[in-house]
Amino acid sequence: MNECIFCKIINGEISSKTVYEDEFVIGFEDINPMAPVHILVIPKYHLSSTESVDSQNSFYISKVFEAIPKISKIKNLDRGYRVVTNTGEDSGQTVKHIHFHILGGKTLDLKMC
Amino acid sequence: MNECIFCKIINGEISSKTVYEDEFVIGFEDINPMAPVHILVIPKYHLSSTESVDSQNSFYISKVFEAIPKISKIKNLDRGYRVVTNTGEDSGQTVKHIHFHILGGKTLDLKMC
Repeated sequence: MNECIFCKIINGEISSKTVYEDEFVIGFEDINPMAPVHILVIPKYHLSSTESVDSQNSFYISKVFEAIPKISKIKNLDRGYRVVTNTGEDSGQTVKHIHFHILGGKTLDLKMC
Repeated sequence: MNECIFCKIINGEISSKTVYEDEFVIGFEDINPMAPVHILVIPKYHLSSTESVDSQNSFYISKVFEAIPKISKIKNLDRGYRVVTNTGEDSGQTVKHIHFHILGGKTLDLKMC
C-alpha cells in the first residue's frame, strides 16, 4: 500500500490539484484530462477496485457518492456529467486504488466503451 | 414515480432479464447492449441521479456497489469491466432513476466520453 500513488496523494507525499476534501474522500484534477472537466474522486480508505467492495467497506463508497454532487457544484456541472470507474485489465484500470472519474463540461459521447 | 420505467421493472410491471436481485438492488440485461456484457444495476429505492445522493440515502448506493462484484462473478467478468452512471443532459441520461452500467466481455475503449 505504501507504493500506491493515490495513497501518496492522500498523504500529501505527491501533490495534486485538490478540488474537494473531507474526512473520507478526496477529489482532484486528472493530470491527463479527457474532457473540459475531469476530476478523480477516491476514498481515503484503500480499496483496489469495485471487486474489493463488500458489506464491511461499502460505507466508503457511499461517502464518495455523497461527495460527487458537491464536486459537481464546485465545477459548475449543472448540465450534467458522467461517473466512471474501471476495474481490471479489460477496462484499462491503471492505478489499483479505486477511483471514480467525473467527466463533464461538454456534450459527452454516448459511446461509453 | 409511478411513471418511472425502472420502478416498473422493480415492481414487475415491466419484464426484464434479471441477472441479480436482493433486498435493495436489481441487476438486469440492458435492452440495447453496447458491449458483450451490458448489465444495468439499480437501487430499488428511487433516486433520480447522482445529484440526488446525500447522507440520508447513500446507503442505497453502497448496496449497489456490494452487488457489483457479485454480478461480475455471475457474468464471468474476471478480465475486468467498467461501471458508468450518467447524470443530466450533457451525459445523455435517459431514465431518471439512477442506474449503473456494467460493461465488459471485451477489451474496452480507453475513451470514456
